Amino acid sequence: MSATIARSWVASANDPDSDFPLQNLPYGVFSVGGHAPRCGAAIGDMILDLAAAEAAGAIEAQGTFARPFMNDFIALGRDTWASTRARLTELLAEDGGNRDLPLVPMADATLHLPIRVTEFTDFYASKNHAFNVGVLFRGPENALPPQWTHMPIGYNGRASSVVVSGTDIIRPMGQLKGEDGPIWSPTRRLDLELELGAIVGADSAMGTRVSVEEAEEMIFGYVLLNDWSARDVQAWEYQPLGPFQSKALGTTISPWIVTVAALEPFRREGAPRDNPLLPYLQEQRPGFFDLQLGWSMNGQMMARTNYNVMYYSSAQQLAHHTESGCPMRVGDLLGTGTISGPSRDQTGALLEMTMGGKEPVTVNGETRTFIQDGDTIALHGHAQGAGYRIGFGPCTGTILPARE
Amino acid sequence: MSATIARSWVASANDPDSDFPLQNLPYGVFSVGGHAPRCGAAIGDMILDLAAAEAAGAIEAQGTFARPFMNDFIALGRDTWASTRARLTELLAEDGGNRDLPLVPMADATLHLPIRVTEFTDFYASKNHAFNVGVLFRGPENALPPQWTHMPIGYNGRASSVVVSGTDIIRPMGQLKGEDGPIWSPTRRLDLELELGAIVGADSAMGTRVSVEEAEEMIFGYVLLNDWSARDVQAWEYQPLGPFQSKALGTTISPWIVTVAALEPFRREGAPRDNPLLPYLQEQRPGFFDLQLGWSMNGQMMARTNYNVMYYSSAQQLAHHTESGCPMRVGDLLGTGTISGPSRDQTGALLEMTMGGKEPVTVNGETRTFIQDGDTIALHGHAQGAGYRIGFGPCTGTILPARE
Repeated sequence: MSATIARSWVASANDPDSDFPLQNLPYGVFSVGGHAPRCGAAIGDMILDLAAAEAAGAIEAQGTFARPFMNDFIALGRDTWASTRARLTELLAEDGGNRDLPLVPMADATLHLPIRVTEFTDFYASKNHAFNVGVLFRGPENALPPQWTHMPIGYNGRASSVVVSGTDIIRPMGQLKGEDGPIWSPTRRLDLELELGAIVGADSAMGTRVSVEEAEEMIFGYVLLNDWSARDVQAWEYQPLGPFQSKALGTTISPWIVTVAALEPFRREGAPRDNPLLPYLQEQRPGFFDLQLGWSMNGQMMARTNYNVMYYSSAQQLAHHTESGCPMRVGDLLGTGTISGPSRDQTGALLEMTMGGKEPVTVNGETRTFIQDGDTIALHGHAQGAGYRIGFGPCTGTILPARE
Repeated sequence: MSATIARSWVASANDPDSDFPLQNLPYGVFSVGGHAPRCGAAIGDMILDLAAAEAAGAIEAQGTFARPFMNDFIALGRDTWASTRARLTELLAEDGGNRDLPLVPMADATLHLPIRVTEFTDFYASKNHAFNVGVLFRGPENALPPQWTHMPIGYNGRASSVVVSGTDIIRPMGQLKGEDGPIWSPTRRLDLELELGAIVGADSAMGTRVSVEEAEEMIFGYVLLNDWSARDVQAWEYQPLGPFQSKALGTTISPWIVTVAALEPFRREGAPRDNPLLPYLQEQRPGFFDLQLGWSMNGQMMARTNYNVMYYSSAQQLAHHTESGCPMRVGDLLGTGTISGPSRDQTGALLEMTMGGKEPVTVNGETRTFIQDGDTIALHGHAQGAGYRIGFGPCTGTILPARE
């Protein structure tokens, strides 16, 4: 890709610190003024109104951009994903672009969930995180479950509780283990989980297994994902059927879906393998990306890590998801699991960072073990190119007091 | 309700062994001939075509009966549920009914999933089942998890794998624990789970908890539910995040939703409590029904039990589901968990009946520990009234060989 093509006539997109240069073109859903939510593409500090662009004849997407979610566009398939990206690149390029396109300042727009989340599955694919959390929940001998290096462990989450960045999160009430039986209390150990979410872009039929290669082709793109967790509720409820209400208080995703096409130049290997995988999980090419990730609390950066520390890719997770013949559908959201590097300042959750609350951290001069009411957590993520970055935009949430 | 009102001009509905007398009027989705699927009500051996009845002006449901799922009708709310039931009773009554209504022989119709399943949650509310399975998975000391008598444990299942009665189920492949690491194999321990499924009939807002009383009012009706399970896959995968692919091969539900209104005369207490519940789970009135349940393999009855052996009602499960503020939506399906009585001939799963495969059973002269290819499992359920029964109709599935 030449430097010329990579520049846009939307000047702000050419700022090397912009999350949304011409190379990115992530998709989302926005509303502005009295208009109903519709699909858009981020470019610099502007949003290209894709529904209006189609109405004006600049692009063609069978009317799907007028919907308040991206699912129907995504369902048009890979060829349409590619041709639309090529067309948008052409229209927004500095040379030869169409300067009459309908743009809206992002600052004026309300951003909505980019997809109607069909189902939500959350995985557990950072070995550092799985080990650290396992030590805290079960002790060092049983920290890493025996099947962990053989399969991407995951559980079904709750799609209805997925919200877009900026949505306040109410501290949940829950059952906590007490001295003499359970007590009813606001969670005292509210945590974040720094993750990516893969957006499934094609259906698979019941009874059919999807290979890792096919799974690669089924993934439309990625968002940042914060799987808010109530650790005390989790500890009391999670055996033997897994986390349930501890993970249903809210899951925040970033409003822009960064496409696999935009991430392709950053494709990388993940963590080294401890043992060979069964054939159905073996990948033919690297399934990770060099994505610089991190999270902040009340504006202070707390940890930085990289997606390439992970052990299982989203494609491997998707393939495993169909092991039983389970059908997958457009709009399914697959959380990668918490992304943690080996050191404390690389951890994607406070549970790990504070050693289960035993070693507090300092945030703007205040002490924290877990998240307090009024705290704001922001996730950060981008791939760094030569003179540009492929960014995800914001993924934030502020905690409101419990409704007791 | 007088005996006169309870008789229908549809003669087959007056057979005391019919699952679908005038007192029942369950809802489903059917197609016949070249027509697209639409909503219907079962009466005797006929289906009342509700879409055609509305088109003819006999009933009024804002056009929702023309849809290929019941969700939109259900979303109209409790007052509409009640007025529609009253109107259908009037129209189908022997005295004063409307004999011009559009009826279709059930034998000619294809039955579809009655709802578009929004999300699927499965619980674990039979103490007998939880104890029996716990012994097999973890030994008698750790059989019943410590929180079990304090909360209705559940996990999110996979809505996309819910199918209607009569759909063949393909034996899944999966990772099984081997001598030297996992092996890739068709499951060798394929099981059923005899359950009911509650259909959620109203939304709840994120951050809002639903009381048990409110939850009672949110439940539209019930279906039979068979949560097919691959026990060897489950044993290897399920710690610490719960069952995943072992439960995603298919979940079969009966095609007719029996309404709470039809079950009301059979309301009963459940199992006695070991300890008081936290206030948010306390019920003001009995939450169970006197439902005679059972299952058969290849035509031979294997076990009989009753819904009133359960420890937590669907209303308590729904209330617990919102403990964290998790939003519920119309079309959510809540499995009760396997319904097992205390004795072996009352167990709702082969895992329990055969003591983990150690004590085979005889089926039509053949030996079984788990389900073989070609076997057909049918669930059965009804409430017995005086001279009539409120039945669920069939809930069957036949196992096809694995696709290796």
